[in-house]
Amino acid sequence: MALDRAATLRADPAWVTRRVSDPASRAVFASRDGVLVGEHPGQRTLVRRSLADLPAAGAALAGPILLGLERDQALFAVDLGALPRASLTALTRGAEVIALRAAAALLARSEAGLAAYLGALLNWHRTNRFCPNCGTATRVAEAGYSRRCPSCGAVHFPRTDPVVIMLVESDGRLLLGRHAGWPPPRYSVLAGYVAPGETLEEAVIREVREESGIDVRDPRYVASQPWPFPSSLMLGFEASSEGGEPTAGDGELEDVRWVTLEAVRAAARGQSAELELPNRVSIARMLIERHLSAQRA
Amino acid sequence: MALDRAATLRADPAWVTRRVSDPASRAVFASRDGVLVGEHPGQRTLVRRSLADLPAAGAALAGPILLGLERDQALFAVDLGALPRASLTALTRGAEVIALRAAAALLARSEAGLAAYLGALLNWHRTNRFCPNCGTATRVAEAGYSRRCPSCGAVHFPRTDPVVIMLVESDGRLLLGRHAGWPPPRYSVLAGYVAPGETLEEAVIREVREESGIDVRDPRYVASQPWPFPSSLMLGFEASSEGGEPTAGDGELEDVRWVTLEAVRAAARGQSAELELPNRVSIARMLIERHLSAQRA
Repeated sequence: MALDRAATLRADPAWVTRRVSDPASRAVFASRDGVLVGEHPGQRTLVRRSLADLPAAGAALAGPILLGLERDQALFAVDLGALPRASLTALTRGAEVIALRAAAALLARSEAGLAAYLGALLNWHRTNRFCPNCGTATRVAEAGYSRRCPSCGAVHFPRTDPVVIMLVESDGRLLLGRHAGWPPPRYSVLAGYVAPGETLEEAVIREVREESGIDVRDPRYVASQPWPFPSSLMLGFEASSEGGEPTAGDGELEDVRWVTLEAVRAAARGQSAELELPNRVSIARMLIERHLSAQRA
Repeated sequence: MALDRAATLRADPAWVTRRVSDPASRAVFASRDGVLVGEHPGQRTLVRRSLADLPAAGAALAGPILLGLERDQALFAVDLGALPRASLTALTRGAEVIALRAAAALLARSEAGLAAYLGALLNWHRTNRFCPNCGTATRVAEAGYSRRCPSCGAVHFPRTDPVVIMLVESDGRLLLGRHAGWPPPRYSVLAGYVAPGETLEEAVIREVREESGIDVRDPRYVASQPWPFPSSLMLGFEASSEGGEPTAGDGELEDVRWVTLEAVRAAARGQSAELELPNRVSIARMLIERHLSAQRA
């Protein structure tokens, strides 16, 4: 993402005020439903408009929300729900609101990163307008990095929930499961939130046991991916197992089973009627493709 | 930690009610200041008492908080601040409240893990009694896994904030910094919160640049450690750098500098007046010791 988050500058209220009235400052837009993207095939990017043309932009969330500096121009996040109808009509001409998941697949990589950041940050401000410590309405602080409670003084930051996601292999087979809500025949690797007080490696072992009854050993970190639906950070692992009969344990999964590499390979090529793998932009798919490549090599 | 968190059972209110009145159920205790630990040298463990002897235990946080099953006995978390004075006096005889950081160093490994979980979970309930979405007072749900808002229906989970912490090396030197509040001459490796929308590896590169102006490449994950002060998950990395002159950039550090391995080795042996390394229970120290061992090998 080609954005400088301006961690130091944003703490200076005078600098932020100047950026708000600076004609060079730009805004990008999101609503509860997604981010605002240009409609024309040649410009599948977030719609950018001069912030100065949007006088009421900061009002609804109690303060302006700065994403950062893009080529030295301030870039603000504006909630479409906070705009007067006339601005909204003008803005959405030749543009459409696209769900964050769809935007991740549609936009170029750095623009998709910006869209995810925009969507996640506005969503956090929208759903965190009150102090969890004392119940008072909070206000934007540090140009959107945090919210501050005028009553008890508590400062609240956006949360990022760590999630472990793990490819488990045993003797040429992968452990895959499916949620009841998924379109059949979609299966994926297992995943779950890290619980308070545990390491990532402990979380991998616990989650696989809870979701499948299978014991794994030696979890190895592979890569991470932010997944802003709404605010997860996926931490990808590989782990090995002696095998055993998996059983969907904790009510999260509808089915969990060992799948041969041959069957996974056919699904990866789109040549399987029995198995569909997760979307190519997901870290789940990346873990699977990486394992297949390593086995071929 | 030898505790089964009972992820499935705890969702059954009838089962939880039976555990609350079960004479075999135990409680462990914490206050804002720390966890309750036995005073005698032979029993530096958390104080465990029968829950049935503590009738008002669940009242203050609006519901009983189950940590999990310990050898098939339910173990509950009780806030010392919620107990009547008579119970408190009886409980604290032959026991003392110890800060979480001190408990981490004092207790055996698995008991320290339990203490961290207890302290972090009660702290979260204590500071999250209101719904951030609508400001209404929330109630304990899933026996303490979450809190639910009776007004808007939102469910809130304890947060765990991912923090990257990285050993940066360049040509036989380590990049170390110090916060103004630390006792001199304490230095440590750099660390910082993962921002929304970035990978761990991007966070390592950004944080080192913000805190020191130094560019690093090829961050490699090493290990993780929960750090419940109040709710961080430390994600340890190693990274390499071409060097350059570090400058304390973003106001967080008072000083940042390259330190030779010889100076770090002397400090690790406790034989340095110029440099003190972080505590042995920290992942910062583990990253440093691991690097020193690898250099010797």
